[in-house]
Amino acid sequence: MGPLIPCIIAGGAGTRLWPVSREALPKPFMRLPDGESLLQKTFKRAALLPDVDQLLTVTNRDVFFRTLDDYRTCMPSDLTLDFILEPFGRNTAPAIAAAALHIAQRYGSDAHVLILPADHLITDITAFQHAVERARHLADQGWLVTFGIQPTRPETGFGYIETGSALGSDGFKVTGFIEKPDCVKAQQFLEGGLHLWNSGMFCMRVDSFLQELQEHAPQILTAISHCLAHSQLFEGSQQRHLELDSQTFALNQDISIDYALMERSKKVAVVPCKLGWSDIGSWQAVRELSPTDRHGNQCVGEHVLHDVHNCYIDSSSRLVAGVGLKDLVIIDTPDALLVADAGRTQDVKYIAQALKQQGHDAYRLHRSVMRPWGSYSVLEEGPGFKLKRIVVKPHGALSLQLHRHRSEHWIVVSGTAQVTNGDQQFMLGRNESTFIKPGRQHRLVNPTDDELVMFEVQCGDYVGEDDIVRFNDRYGRTEIP
Amino acid sequence: MGPLIPCIIAGGAGTRLWPVSREALPKPFMRLPDGESLLQKTFKRAALLPDVDQLLTVTNRDVFFRTLDDYRTCMPSDLTLDFILEPFGRNTAPAIAAAALHIAQRYGSDAHVLILPADHLITDITAFQHAVERARHLADQGWLVTFGIQPTRPETGFGYIETGSALGSDGFKVTGFIEKPDCVKAQQFLEGGLHLWNSGMFCMRVDSFLQELQEHAPQILTAISHCLAHSQLFEGSQQRHLELDSQTFALNQDISIDYALMERSKKVAVVPCKLGWSDIGSWQAVRELSPTDRHGNQCVGEHVLHDVHNCYIDSSSRLVAGVGLKDLVIIDTPDALLVADAGRTQDVKYIAQALKQQGHDAYRLHRSVMRPWGSYSVLEEGPGFKLKRIVVKPHGALSLQLHRHRSEHWIVVSGTAQVTNGDQQFMLGRNESTFIKPGRQHRLVNPTDDELVMFEVQCGDYVGEDDIVRFNDRYGRTEIP
Repeated sequence: MGPLIPCIIAGGAGTRLWPVSREALPKPFMRLPDGESLLQKTFKRAALLPDVDQLLTVTNRDVFFRTLDDYRTCMPSDLTLDFILEPFGRNTAPAIAAAALHIAQRYGSDAHVLILPADHLITDITAFQHAVERARHLADQGWLVTFGIQPTRPETGFGYIETGSALGSDGFKVTGFIEKPDCVKAQQFLEGGLHLWNSGMFCMRVDSFLQELQEHAPQILTAISHCLAHSQLFEGSQQRHLELDSQTFALNQDISIDYALMERSKKVAVVPCKLGWSDIGSWQAVRELSPTDRHGNQCVGEHVLHDVHNCYIDSSSRLVAGVGLKDLVIIDTPDALLVADAGRTQDVKYIAQALKQQGHDAYRLHRSVMRPWGSYSVLEEGPGFKLKRIVVKPHGALSLQLHRHRSEHWIVVSGTAQVTNGDQQFMLGRNESTFIKPGRQHRLVNPTDDELVMFEVQCGDYVGEDDIVRFNDRYGRTEIP
Repeated sequence: MGPLIPCIIAGGAGTRLWPVSREALPKPFMRLPDGESLLQKTFKRAALLPDVDQLLTVTNRDVFFRTLDDYRTCMPSDLTLDFILEPFGRNTAPAIAAAALHIAQRYGSDAHVLILPADHLITDITAFQHAVERARHLADQGWLVTFGIQPTRPETGFGYIETGSALGSDGFKVTGFIEKPDCVKAQQFLEGGLHLWNSGMFCMRVDSFLQELQEHAPQILTAISHCLAHSQLFEGSQQRHLELDSQTFALNQDISIDYALMERSKKVAVVPCKLGWSDIGSWQAVRELSPTDRHGNQCVGEHVLHDVHNCYIDSSSRLVAGVGLKDLVIIDTPDALLVADAGRTQDVKYIAQALKQQGHDAYRLHRSVMRPWGSYSVLEEGPGFKLKRIVVKPHGALSLQLHRHRSEHWIVVSGTAQVTNGDQQFMLGRNESTFIKPGRQHRLVNPTDDELVMFEVQCGDYVGEDDIVRFNDRYGRTEIP
């Protein structure tokens, strides 16, 4: 049997989990009540599989460094990390096709790819490992194997897989995929016992997959091959990433692998499983992860409640007071607040949609913006000024840059900065400051093992983020005008 | 007839209007939807009365400068302002007794005092003026005149006044005061037509009042006279204030004028009136001041709503999203959020009480703290540092001061500062900064007609507000250790 290459697909906007999940830092990065992200859990699940030495991740290039940060805290030291970085989302078909071609080339066409979306939760790791084992048996026989979750309720929000004849003791032939059914159908599915929830996970030999793709959706294979030929590979010691070329990637169809291939191929099998699976598809699903107090409430953060029952309150930085409330979800973030009926949390997507239509920043960005070197948060903004908190990771470095329209005052409050300010280079410790004139080249580096925290006051006739000229950037973001 | 001296009583915590009303800046200062505070409305109501040349205010000394700010924006230039400043609250009896003694001494014992609490709203100014006219007729005959509001509902949250025989066409003799009744009694009062809501306003000749007080509560008169004898008067050109001595004021009984005198005296009359009166006693009462949209919602600030009805949402600085909500009040402030059932807004007082018991800052203080010279807001706080926004009013000045444990970095982002930093004095314009070492005397003055806005980053082993030594303060806050 060929080697097993888990492939984490870290996409999806997770709009129903707004305001915590936003386009620029979506659902896979969301911290669950235990402090781990769905992405970290997916990573650990993959890394714990027997005989896994390498792991591929397909994700958006904007969250690459954040993904590395998430992995780093739970990475076994001997694992090789491969990344395919998308310039934007094109659904799962191009992503999985790229992964398969990449794996075939690097690990041989008999390799098994295990597609693992990072937007759901699996709590029964042993059951997961057994399911993967069974899937590999079937994959080795040329089947494109899906994982079907035993339904526990007449859910209308998921797709279903219809099982046909048995394939030994490992699984079943798939006779059909059914998109989100209505209530009546969902109830029939639950009672009939022939239908399983489509988890979005797959296990396949890459040669079988590519052959089926060639037969049923050759245009996808052609488009992604063309893109790969134009893309650049960056090799590091323990990590390499393939940055997909945006011009040729844009030519790929925006289509799911289910629709492009699985619904057409005759070689699709399913492994039925119970994995303690949850799609964490809404705040209601998130709250089910925490125990309730004696009033049925689940609260994170400071709160004072009077006659409040069955509410979920998540507020990391502000005091929340409730009076006479029942069945509400209250999610408080620095720049946006959500209050929703607990039975209507699916509809939070309409809020996200409305914000997207308005072109509102709160659809895309959090108040704290992640960067390869750390993060910044805009604390105040007014006519001609902006105040930021800047946190630089140990050994992180901002690019050598200049601004045409603004000055910057830097004041370090924690850690030590190595500063380039025009011709001068010096260290700036806690309680020290420097002033950077407009047009002057400057750079901020954290040369230490501790986090650097500083405040930056910007003043100028224009203080937009796009007033930046980068000369030298260790994260490949240089653009000399 | 003696002169009319309106006396504004600006007290009361307004705990049911938390988190906007807090101990240090309570209900009278709250902005209503039209942008004016209850205090400003009370001031204008008083100033618009015929033949009013002077106005007395009894308030807490901590809000003196904020009161002056509120008055300044609506002050007729020829009005003389008198203040009696309490070191802490002792209910209405000592406050009104002090006012009466002060007025008797300054304007003669035939002067009429018109007691006007600043914690309610009156929308019909003409009706108010007519009521005052009738009250003055009765006061001139020696009656202690109350103002009774015609009930419009069986309210159980107010005190009631029972009317007796008519006193000409101006009013009625009062036969009794009834504390907050139960539902049945309140319904009887509403139907019987003999009971009026006690508005807390009074009109009295000071000699009649002092005589009745001497007869029914002589201990109150003795205690407050003793306090006045120990208190200091500060005279300005258009404004003077009497600062009550805290040691002797503490000896006063904490008691309302109703309980101490009105319920005992036989000389109490009432002028029935309809004034468009509201006690603004809860968020439900506040929301009644604004029109609703077609979904029955009233929203202040940015919001995105999906199937939200009959909700009141007030958020000045954050985006609020609602999904599937009905009959809620959502009040968002920089450091605290209230979500309450619209029918239960009276119970918000329990939240305030709980915070008071915990000794929580959010009971007493807002994130923006008012000072005689302007205001400051703590934007961030961490181990050994604090970040503040400081706003100095035109011609405002902070005291000459020093800190033993912290340095300060000042960066001006709007306006011009005149800075004393040790031996040096200089001007600091927008986009300029200075650094103040621990132990160095410094002062910040805004010498211009425009507001000064700056950020202050404090660093030190201790950054508490009490690390301050004041050498010279134009607001009388000097304490040389």
